[in-house]
Amino acid sequence: MTPTQALPKVLDRIDADLEHSLARLFDFLRLQSISTDPAYADQCRAAAQFVAHDLETLGLKAELRETKGHPVVVAKPQRRNGGLRALFYGHYDVQPVDPLELWQTPPFDPRIEDLGNGRRIVVARGACDDKGQLMTFVEACRAFKHVTGELPLDITVMIEGEEECGSKSLFPFVKENADEFRLDLALVCDTGMWSPTVPSITTSLRGLVYEDVTVTAADRDLHSGLFGGAAQNPIRVLAKIIAALHDDEGRIAIPGFYDGVRELPPDIRADLKALNLMPEDFLGQVGLRLPAGEKDRMLIEAISTRPACDTNGIVGGYTGEGAKTVIPAQAQAKISFRLVGDQDPEKIRDAFRAFVRERVPADCKVAFENHGCAPALQLPFDSPAIVKTRQALQDEWGAKAVTVGAGGSIPIVGDFKRLLGMDTLMVGFALDDDRVHSPNEKYDLASFHKGTRSWARILAALAG
Amino acid sequence: MTPTQALPKVLDRIDADLEHSLARLFDFLRLQSISTDPAYADQCRAAAQFVAHDLETLGLKAELRETKGHPVVVAKPQRRNGGLRALFYGHYDVQPVDPLELWQTPPFDPRIEDLGNGRRIVVARGACDDKGQLMTFVEACRAFKHVTGELPLDITVMIEGEEECGSKSLFPFVKENADEFRLDLALVCDTGMWSPTVPSITTSLRGLVYEDVTVTAADRDLHSGLFGGAAQNPIRVLAKIIAALHDDEGRIAIPGFYDGVRELPPDIRADLKALNLMPEDFLGQVGLRLPAGEKDRMLIEAISTRPACDTNGIVGGYTGEGAKTVIPAQAQAKISFRLVGDQDPEKIRDAFRAFVRERVPADCKVAFENHGCAPALQLPFDSPAIVKTRQALQDEWGAKAVTVGAGGSIPIVGDFKRLLGMDTLMVGFALDDDRVHSPNEKYDLASFHKGTRSWARILAALAG
Repeated sequence: MTPTQALPKVLDRIDADLEHSLARLFDFLRLQSISTDPAYADQCRAAAQFVAHDLETLGLKAELRETKGHPVVVAKPQRRNGGLRALFYGHYDVQPVDPLELWQTPPFDPRIEDLGNGRRIVVARGACDDKGQLMTFVEACRAFKHVTGELPLDITVMIEGEEECGSKSLFPFVKENADEFRLDLALVCDTGMWSPTVPSITTSLRGLVYEDVTVTAADRDLHSGLFGGAAQNPIRVLAKIIAALHDDEGRIAIPGFYDGVRELPPDIRADLKALNLMPEDFLGQVGLRLPAGEKDRMLIEAISTRPACDTNGIVGGYTGEGAKTVIPAQAQAKISFRLVGDQDPEKIRDAFRAFVRERVPADCKVAFENHGCAPALQLPFDSPAIVKTRQALQDEWGAKAVTVGAGGSIPIVGDFKRLLGMDTLMVGFALDDDRVHSPNEKYDLASFHKGTRSWARILAALAG
Repeated sequence: MTPTQALPKVLDRIDADLEHSLARLFDFLRLQSISTDPAYADQCRAAAQFVAHDLETLGLKAELRETKGHPVVVAKPQRRNGGLRALFYGHYDVQPVDPLELWQTPPFDPRIEDLGNGRRIVVARGACDDKGQLMTFVEACRAFKHVTGELPLDITVMIEGEEECGSKSLFPFVKENADEFRLDLALVCDTGMWSPTVPSITTSLRGLVYEDVTVTAADRDLHSGLFGGAAQNPIRVLAKIIAALHDDEGRIAIPGFYDGVRELPPDIRADLKALNLMPEDFLGQVGLRLPAGEKDRMLIEAISTRPACDTNGIVGGYTGEGAKTVIPAQAQAKISFRLVGDQDPEKIRDAFRAFVRERVPADCKVAFENHGCAPALQLPFDSPAIVKTRQALQDEWGAKAVTVGAGGSIPIVGDFKRLLGMDTLMVGFALDDDRVHSPNEKYDLASFHKGTRSWARILAALAG
């Protein structure tokens, strides 16, 4: 019986076993695996052991691999079955729970709440990020194991415990053990749906160049009464540079900046347009309404498939209460770029520095410090994995799956590409109102249930 | 014995008492009277009490007059002597000391340093501005009192504690008590020498408008990965405003800003030109060399008789170590204008606010807070007080005293003119390298000693 032939029974099994699936998720959610706080180290280890034990029940050989931080759970097939080799990545750690007083019920005491509008939700820290999401994959595997006696693919699982505090141990771990994990395709369930009814595949992640710029004018702070009108002011120098970074059309004005930025294929662009993302919906949620980027681009392009530039911080001169009539010696800004397509981070860093240097007066100095240089990731829209996954998601949800770019980066996905030469398929069932990282985090029961069914369909499709 | 007859003995007394004069100054400098920071309110009061007590020793009747802010020290003659009635104004408060790590020794632990080139300096916050300067006047009075048993003139003293944070309480105080202070001439020692060997009388002062501008975009800090390219960044909004404040010729671009700015009379302009102030001399002392103001003006005009605009501080977003990919909700700048001639501070404040509002996107908010609004001031070049003072200064320094415009404002001088109808004679002994408002502020011992002697000569001349 091929996985595709088994699929109907697997889906039935998922439906029939839902209460037990939820019970397992609840056991997982009760573990207080807050990775950033050393006081919870034992709870993190307990969560790792829980995951390892659960993966053993799928017929995998699981172990805790020690790092300088929390252990990584690695589970491998007992034997090869010869098909596509997939690496599933997730994390068992969660964010801290503060402010605790804003939780309606204890964060590690999971509960189901009926919202009365046909939606039921699981409320707990980690309900979505990432315990609920990763369990959709595990439960899909479990149903296959129950129905067919085996998993539908050669599946290796890597579940880390430091995603919420920077994944510091994971990069060296993957680098040192690259041969174990250099498989055919990575799978990640840590992203969201387009809407509660429209599933989504994340096909690109924006890259990042992050620079600290310090402009020094005079060799000391000056009295603006004595020197105003004569001495250069480094805040003014920086302000002119920041103002010059965008032209009147909202485009970034650094020469060569758009090299490597590609236009979307017309069909993908039409799909995005059909989503009709309105500024009042996307920006309205944070109290804004006017898109501030490139004027000739759709909002959904601006946040996912176009590059962007932001000043993330600036400081100079007197910033306390009241007035101080000073021309400061120095001003500093943190300026970052989100990259797409084949934009070259090093070239952009250098072009940015040249752009700045040209605008610094000859008697002033400028210094740079780099805090990040990562290229964008773009999966081919026509790769077999994406084509199959789109169909699988449409079969489950009854709506065409959208392929979107994610504005932020998921560093491990870049590492998989660079260290292992492996693309990553990112599918997830989080919703915009899941309160990830905030009090009363939740995951829709529909996300959990239909997410599990979605993974079953995806695995069957990838195996076929 | 007239003051003029007593003068030689008074000058001798000043020389003989120098060590004690310095000891008194040091006691004053040890008081941490930072007026802008509420944490130092007790120290401000202690400084006021120090001054009041010291003025009592001159035979004056001194008291602390309460205001909404720090108290004003007022000292009056016990009885009238019938001659010229002078009002001496100074301030006991000082600027904040940040950045503290750039001080070679603690800012409130005054010390004398021998520069090895014949110059000795007093190093401390306030050494010059204004504790050292105001004590030259007090010590001259003390010497007269010692030699003649009385002060050479009818002297009322007003020492405020909020000059460094906008003198907010002083204007209503002077207005409410105008009859007490409507005397013949005001004296102020808060200005500088032309050079270490050439004394100076300040005949004009630039006015000031000082505004705090806060731009708010989203209602919370945003992730630049998710919102970059879509959400407005308040740092970018502020940077564009600051960049737009000057045009390419270095002129201030606010409509109507130059209304009331007058050209200098040709002879005064020729005098200024003859001083031949070179950028490498004036700016070279602080590590710069290129004038940053209006391109078609002499440097000495730019710093004294032309208006100017500076951003005195800016802050927004993440300013700590490393990187944080945030689009901040808010950014703030402190922006001030130096005014000349008949520029109207209120009109300029309003024009500035309109200029800013025009440039704030419709879905962002802007808030303003004013920290000062003072017009510029111009004194007659040929008044008797100025003629007598020029001679007294020449007698002490052996060089012709120059009459110059000062770049900074002393708002109270404008108030004396408008509220009390009283002109102000501004003589001071600060030097360009005094690091006023900066770390390692200093005052030359020669400024202190010969400054005291200069005041003795000026007081004798004014009494004669």
